[in-house]
Amino acid sequence: MYALPIARLIEEFAKMPGIGKRSAERLAYHILRISREEVQGFSQALLAAKDQITFCPECQSLTDCVPCEICSCEKRDHSIICVVENPKDILAMEKTREYKGVYHVLHGAISPMDGIGPEDLKMKELLDRISKGNVKEVIMATNPNIEGEATAMYVSKLLHPLGVKVTRIAHGIPVGGDLEYADEVTLTRALEGRHEI
Amino acid sequence: MYALPIARLIEEFAKMPGIGKRSAERLAYHILRISREEVQGFSQALLAAKDQITFCPECQSLTDCVPCEICSCEKRDHSIICVVENPKDILAMEKTREYKGVYHVLHGAISPMDGIGPEDLKMKELLDRISKGNVKEVIMATNPNIEGEATAMYVSKLLHPLGVKVTRIAHGIPVGGDLEYADEVTLTRALEGRHEI
Repeated sequence: MYALPIARLIEEFAKMPGIGKRSAERLAYHILRISREEVQGFSQALLAAKDQITFCPECQSLTDCVPCEICSCEKRDHSIICVVENPKDILAMEKTREYKGVYHVLHGAISPMDGIGPEDLKMKELLDRISKGNVKEVIMATNPNIEGEATAMYVSKLLHPLGVKVTRIAHGIPVGGDLEYADEVTLTRALEGRHEI
Repeated sequence: MYALPIARLIEEFAKMPGIGKRSAERLAYHILRISREEVQGFSQALLAAKDQITFCPECQSLTDCVPCEICSCEKRDHSIICVVENPKDILAMEKTREYKGVYHVLHGAISPMDGIGPEDLKMKELLDRISKGNVKEVIMATNPNIEGEATAMYVSKLLHPLGVKVTRIAHGIPVGGDLEYADEVTLTRALEGRHEI
C-alpha cells in the first residue's frame, strides 16, 4: 500500500540494529519532511564515512589516516597493547589520560550463544603483532561480562606459549559507588583484589 | 576524538527523531560494518524517496503518482472526505475495506503546546476542496487524544458556515477488549454513544 520509494526506504531503515518497523516508518517520514539539501547531506555523510574510514592495519581500529593517530605516535609505548572489544572503548581508555601504550580492537567478544568464535574477531591480527616480538604486556580490557571474560581467558591461553605477559583490568566497586548497592559478584571480586595500603 | 567522517555521520543520525547520541553511534558503526553496495543502496533509497514522493495536490497524502491512486480512482465517492492526521492513517482506514470515500491528510494536529496551529497543517487545502462544492460529508478521523479532538472541533466550526456535514468517528471500547481494563473516559464515551439493538 505504500508508494514503492517509501516502502523501499522503510525497508532500508528497518535493516539497521535496534530499528523496528514502527521506527523505520517514522524515520522514513522524517526524510520526506526535511529539505532535499538535508537528505543529500545525510546521503553524502554515509558514503564519505564508508569511503574514508578503514581499519588501521596495526590496531584494527577505525581511522581516516593509515596507520591511525595512536599507532603512528612515537611518544606512545608500543610494547604494551591494550585489547578492547570496540573502537569506542579506546575513547573511554583515552579519557583516563593515564594509558600511554597502544591498542588492539577485536571488534566483538567470543560469544558461542551468538555464534561468534575467535575466527570472527581480529584475533589473528593480534597474534601477528605479538609474533613480531617487542611486546612486553597485553592488557585485556574487554567488558566485565561473560563474553568479555571468556575472550580475556582465550587470549591469555593463546599468548601464553609466546611468553608475553597478559593482564586483566581490575574488577571492584566503582569509585563514588555505594557498597550497599554493589552486587555480590563485584564485591567478591573487590575482596579478592584487595591490596595493602 | 572520533575521526571526522564518523563524527559527521553520528551527527547526521542524531538529528533524526527518537535517535539519541548512543543510538547514533551504534548506527554509524553499523554503516561502517556493512558493504559499500549496501550503503550505496541506502543512500539511493533516501534520495529516490525524496525525489519521487510528493504531496498529492488533492488529498495532500504522500504519493509517487499525481494525483494519488485514491484521488484518481473514479469508483470512489468523492463527495465524502475522511480527514486524518498522517498518511499512515489512510493505510489503517483502507484495511477496514469499508470506506469508499476519499481522504485529506492534515499532516499533524493542532497542538498549542508544541506550537502547532491550523496554519501549520493542510487546513487551507481542505477548505479549498470543500469550497469547490460537491462535498456532502467530512468525517473527522483524527486521533482520539486532546490534539485530535481539538482539531476535529476546529474543522467542525470552520466548515459549519459552508453547510457541509462534519462527523466524528465513534469512541468506545475496542472490539475484543475487556471492560475491566477500559479507562473511564473511554467507558464514558462508550456509554454516551450507546445505540438500540
